[in-house]
Amino acid sequence: MSGNTFGKAFRLTTFGESHGPAVGAVVDGCPAGLELGENDIQQELEKRRPGQSAVSTKRAEPDHVEILSGVFEGKTTGAPIAMLIRNVDVDSSAYTDIKDLLRPGHADQGYFEKYGFRDYRGGGRSSGRETAGRVMGGAIAKKLLSLKGVHVYAHTTSIYDVRAGDVTLDDIIANTYSNTVRTADLSVVKEMEEAILMAKRDGDSVGGTVEAVAVGVPPGLGEPVFGKLDADLAGALMGIGAVKGVEIGLGFKASSLRGGEMNDEFHMENGEIKAITNNAGGILGGISNGMPIVCRIAVKPTPSISRPQRTVNVKTMEDAVIEITGRHDPSIVPRVVPVIEAMVSLVLADHMLMGGRIGPEKV
Amino acid sequence: MSGNTFGKAFRLTTFGESHGPAVGAVVDGCPAGLELGENDIQQELEKRRPGQSAVSTKRAEPDHVEILSGVFEGKTTGAPIAMLIRNVDVDSSAYTDIKDLLRPGHADQGYFEKYGFRDYRGGGRSSGRETAGRVMGGAIAKKLLSLKGVHVYAHTTSIYDVRAGDVTLDDIIANTYSNTVRTADLSVVKEMEEAILMAKRDGDSVGGTVEAVAVGVPPGLGEPVFGKLDADLAGALMGIGAVKGVEIGLGFKASSLRGGEMNDEFHMENGEIKAITNNAGGILGGISNGMPIVCRIAVKPTPSISRPQRTVNVKTMEDAVIEITGRHDPSIVPRVVPVIEAMVSLVLADHMLMGGRIGPEKV
Amino acid sequence: MSGNTFGKAFRLTTFGESHGPAVGAVVDGCPAGLELGENDIQQELEKRRPGQSAVSTKRAEPDHVEILSGVFEGKTTGAPIAMLIRNVDVDSSAYTDIKDLLRPGHADQGYFEKYGFRDYRGGGRSSGRETAGRVMGGAIAKKLLSLKGVHVYAHTTSIYDVRAGDVTLDDIIANTYSNTVRTADLSVVKEMEEAILMAKRDGDSVGGTVEAVAVGVPPGLGEPVFGKLDADLAGALMGIGAVKGVEIGLGFKASSLRGGEMNDEFHMENGEIKAITNNAGGILGGISNGMPIVCRIAVKPTPSISRPQRTVNVKTMEDAVIEITGRHDPSIVPRVVPVIEAMVSLVLADHMLMGGRIGPEKV
Amino acid sequence: MSGNTFGKAFRLTTFGESHGPAVGAVVDGCPAGLELGENDIQQELEKRRPGQSAVSTKRAEPDHVEILSGVFEGKTTGAPIAMLIRNVDVDSSAYTDIKDLLRPGHADQGYFEKYGFRDYRGGGRSSGRETAGRVMGGAIAKKLLSLKGVHVYAHTTSIYDVRAGDVTLDDIIANTYSNTVRTADLSVVKEMEEAILMAKRDGDSVGGTVEAVAVGVPPGLGEPVFGKLDADLAGALMGIGAVKGVEIGLGFKASSLRGGEMNDEFHMENGEIKAITNNAGGILGGISNGMPIVCRIAVKPTPSISRPQRTVNVKTMEDAVIEITGRHDPSIVPRVVPVIEAMVSLVLADHMLMGGRIGPEKV
Repeated sequence: MSGNTFGKAFRLTTFGESHGPAVGAVVDGCPAGLELGENDIQQELEKRRPGQSAVSTKRAEPDHVEILSGVFEGKTTGAPIAMLIRNVDVDSSAYTDIKDLLRPGHADQGYFEKYGFRDYRGGGRSSGRETAGRVMGGAIAKKLLSLKGVHVYAHTTSIYDVRAGDVTLDDIIANTYSNTVRTADLSVVKEMEEAILMAKRDGDSVGGTVEAVAVGVPPGLGEPVFGKLDADLAGALMGIGAVKGVEIGLGFKASSLRGGEMNDEFHMENGEIKAITNNAGGILGGISNGMPIVCRIAVKPTPSISRPQRTVNVKTMEDAVIEITGRHDPSIVPRVVPVIEAMVSLVLADHMLMGGRIGPEKV
Repeated sequence: MSGNTFGKAFRLTTFGESHGPAVGAVVDGCPAGLELGENDIQQELEKRRPGQSAVSTKRAEPDHVEILSGVFEGKTTGAPIAMLIRNVDVDSSAYTDIKDLLRPGHADQGYFEKYGFRDYRGGGRSSGRETAGRVMGGAIAKKLLSLKGVHVYAHTTSIYDVRAGDVTLDDIIANTYSNTVRTADLSVVKEMEEAILMAKRDGDSVGGTVEAVAVGVPPGLGEPVFGKLDADLAGALMGIGAVKGVEIGLGFKASSLRGGEMNDEFHMENGEIKAITNNAGGILGGISNGMPIVCRIAVKPTPSISRPQRTVNVKTMEDAVIEITGRHDPSIVPRVVPVIEAMVSLVLADHMLMGGRIGPEKV
Repeated sequence: MSGNTFGKAFRLTTFGESHGPAVGAVVDGCPAGLELGENDIQQELEKRRPGQSAVSTKRAEPDHVEILSGVFEGKTTGAPIAMLIRNVDVDSSAYTDIKDLLRPGHADQGYFEKYGFRDYRGGGRSSGRETAGRVMGGAIAKKLLSLKGVHVYAHTTSIYDVRAGDVTLDDIIANTYSNTVRTADLSVVKEMEEAILMAKRDGDSVGGTVEAVAVGVPPGLGEPVFGKLDADLAGALMGIGAVKGVEIGLGFKASSLRGGEMNDEFHMENGEIKAITNNAGGILGGISNGMPIVCRIAVKPTPSISRPQRTVNVKTMEDAVIEITGRHDPSIVPRVVPVIEAMVSLVLADHMLMGGRIGPEKV
Repeated sequence: MSGNTFGKAFRLTTFGESHGPAVGAVVDGCPAGLELGENDIQQELEKRRPGQSAVSTKRAEPDHVEILSGVFEGKTTGAPIAMLIRNVDVDSSAYTDIKDLLRPGHADQGYFEKYGFRDYRGGGRSSGRETAGRVMGGAIAKKLLSLKGVHVYAHTTSIYDVRAGDVTLDDIIANTYSNTVRTADLSVVKEMEEAILMAKRDGDSVGGTVEAVAVGVPPGLGEPVFGKLDADLAGALMGIGAVKGVEIGLGFKASSLRGGEMNDEFHMENGEIKAITNNAGGILGGISNGMPIVCRIAVKPTPSISRPQRTVNVKTMEDAVIEITGRHDPSIVPRVVPVIEAMVSLVLADHMLMGGRIGPEKV
């Protein structure tokens, strides 16, 4: 079955493997007339580009994007927008030794069982490198959303046992991409870096959490039953590699509350209906209510660790020990932050086009 | 936009409002030759039927299902299977008084903004009653899965501040539907009931958590990038009304672990590749790995509470106070349990048909 | 695979078998606020209702429609609209004798090969009775289109060797449903009836052609490459049972013309861009150009004929002779006319909602 | 709305404009393990490559394909296969002069109305050059089908008033690509060429017809109601630019027959059920019956002609005269032949994967 396309009205298809010739994306359904240049894509790619600091992988990819179609005289035409980045710093040597060994915590076993055959170099399609395609698509979604006053931000809220304190939207905007760990609370940057580097020194890795916030989202986005906005967000976010949990609003905390504590009451404010609190995280009954959308995402530690691990050799079908020596992020959390922004933007752009504010929900 | 159909190969469309003439479902894509009778549907509907105990709503619906198509001489024909239950115990009087008041914690505001118009009686389409359609569809998915040795179970793991202890699969199978709160740990049934009834006496409600387990799932289900099995599960579960969080495997706990703690190592066991632990919850890289699939779901407290709440009258656009007097579940958790089973079953059946074990993933 | 849903934004799912308890339809994606009653559906169903004349089947079905959901206080709510008609005049006796014989010209062999099992009574799902569901869905599409000034008409242009003369739009509107053969040229009604009745007397059947015209269609409907308006129309029309050919505009005639004869030149007319001719039939490059959309459809003779035909018994796997004695239309052409209107209306409504005039094709 | 993806299980997305940097395609859903190299794609592209003879455009494109993903060690991995060809011989000068003039018979007006903006160079996305992407996708579909013994052939049956005589399958296989007009009847090659060249000399163009035949198609492909095989074929073929009509089997001829003439009777032949004739063209009730699938397609004359034509200037909104001087095919028919093969192959591969012979139609 085909499963590399995301969205209904604003559709993103990604392609490419970690150690193949290129990774890329095709966006279909972008309205005509949007000003768009390679710069718009490039600046988002820069946020996830590898090789930028000690807490990230040493693979150094320029990730220079080329737009192949769909833009004419600086504007989108309504035609599909294909984007391409060539893989440059490919070193597959580390994978030849382990090509018959299933890496614990990775997709290797599933691919092997499903396809009977896999591109073992760097995870192939299941590599984090595939998310470059999502960021390309997300960049266009972001541009489209910004025209409607919608802005999406993500930031690291914890790494291992280091938790960021409370931050404001201004903190998030100002600080997130100013530091290597992508946190909005600058007071914990050092500690977070240290947690990552300590794990790295131990041949290990660490997980963390990320919060995403979307502001300016109009009420009315989301379908009532199976295309709920929160369902689509949860699917989009859980579908990022290494994500193991997603919450909207108070999330799991809501499960130990009473209705009187959880419900967001309404009042009139300057002639507009306003919720007084935002425990729901901006979505009720699957439909946006005009409050900021707030999600929290759990990211597991990078499965590629250099410590010896027990595994199985699929050629000999015998027990084996694997030591992974490729170049890896000791924590994937900082590099997931822009991917989360991309996925949230894709979901929102899709629902905007499906009829939240623009489309035909009413006759 | 249309948003009332779920799935790609095994597709469920639900219809009907809480206080309209009927609710129903159409399943399209069920293979021919499956033995199926109204009994198979009815027994699942019984698990979510209202009016069964003091901890549930007093609305007493017989929920008698009629199969309208797709079954001939006791077997499915491959044609769409339409199923219908008539609404019988409809009392809309409680809603007339509050038809212009937005109920806090409900979908009212979103529907109002989106459609400019809504069936205010009992929540209309956003009512929990819609989930009867999901249970009907899920019943067929369950039957199909059971032919392949796949079984799906859900059980209540907490209500408000009462947490169930550790349970075995046998406990889950034996106990869950033997008690009103749908927990597998019989030692906490009384406490859970009391937590619900206490909230009810206070005109309030409580939330809780539910765990879902799928056993017998073959490796290889799930698409690699955007149709990941965990993404589809997260979307399916977050799309149930009142759900605010979803975890797979260790979930949020994974965010404060190191890779060496999180990774599930492999070894050979009776000639088969086996993961030694199941921290991943049966899914890696979006593809099932043959281990049990384990999800945890956070359910918020029922938003309908009888205590006065601040709100807004959309006719006068003035502040108002609402007191909700309809018949409601003081905790929706026990009644969500069979709905969660249905949604997990629908996702698994869909992926089975899309090519996990049956279809054409390999030439 | 599931294949009983039509459309992307305005989606119709049909269900039900010829000799089962009921046939029905669910429309998902109809905007809220459309005035709609059972009458709107019933009047379209009347146009295809069986048992109305000597040239049609003797099966007498009241085809009384019930709306089960999606309409509140006389208006659509945006929720799915489920519609049901019960099968009343079911007589399956004629089919018991031939249940192991493949009827020539019917879907029997395909269903047998595909599903290994079929509801042999009256063709089951492949019966023309399924089109009642399409007419129900089409009735809602028609109502929606009429709000935008779009109107869809079909009329019989030939039966066997009897051809209707040229007619005007006024003729089509005034005459089509005033006669049993659904032609706009009243001068050929008798001859067409006679062609049908003569075939009937011979235990045989006849085919014919139908033209569909859609007026008021705004320019800009249709997607550029794979969702072309003409492609979707061709798919929709060829997907009606018994249809073997579809043309748009000059159709096959265009293949023996030169470009200078075929091209529709433009000029200004009252300040508007107008094509001077309409050889293209209202669609160029897959996108409507504002001219009337014109299609022609070839309908084969009803495959159910009472003359003995050679066939095979699938139980004994031996040659056999079949004589079909059920109640059948000696020509299906007149009853296909409203189905063609329904399908064209569904395609146009779908494209209107996808973004022709309402949606977000431009930023 | 997005409309550049074709298929459900075997999905093709095309991108690129005639005068942009590149055209390309992404195939998602191809099973793993298929042997595939750039050669397989290239040989199909050669069949439609421009600049090969006097009857085709003078634009000389090498159309060298690069596979960017989804193939590893000479085999598909199940991941999306992205393919790219760079546009090399781009000369947009002829279009600058006419950028505000609507070309009669082209998509210009529709694009202008729909998007308010268009890439006017060579038709942009609506150019025949887009079909290179279809041929790339079709090449993979063909390879997949050939593994199952399914082969698809198209050949020119008429150009303007020159009709090919009856041909055998062997003629089609041996002759079609041996001549410039892609006909299987070698006796009419000269006449067909002359018809094209005469039109060219007159600054005009000609249409024609093409027949497609698919042999080895197993019975059981096609969905019963809305995913019928003939409906999908008709949609796929009508969606090729310049196609104005599609027939299956006897097509329009069936409309003037009686059932006794049209029905294909059955008999046993070497232990197998066989239809004695193939008037149905291999599809009944939307499902393949094991006989060869036969379609006929009407292609209009190329709309780009150099003779002066009346039109409108969209900038001044005044009447104007257009003379088109770009490089064009005086008949598009020969170059449509491989595109038709591609589209038929895509439809068949899609249905094979959806469950005709491989998938789960039966439990």
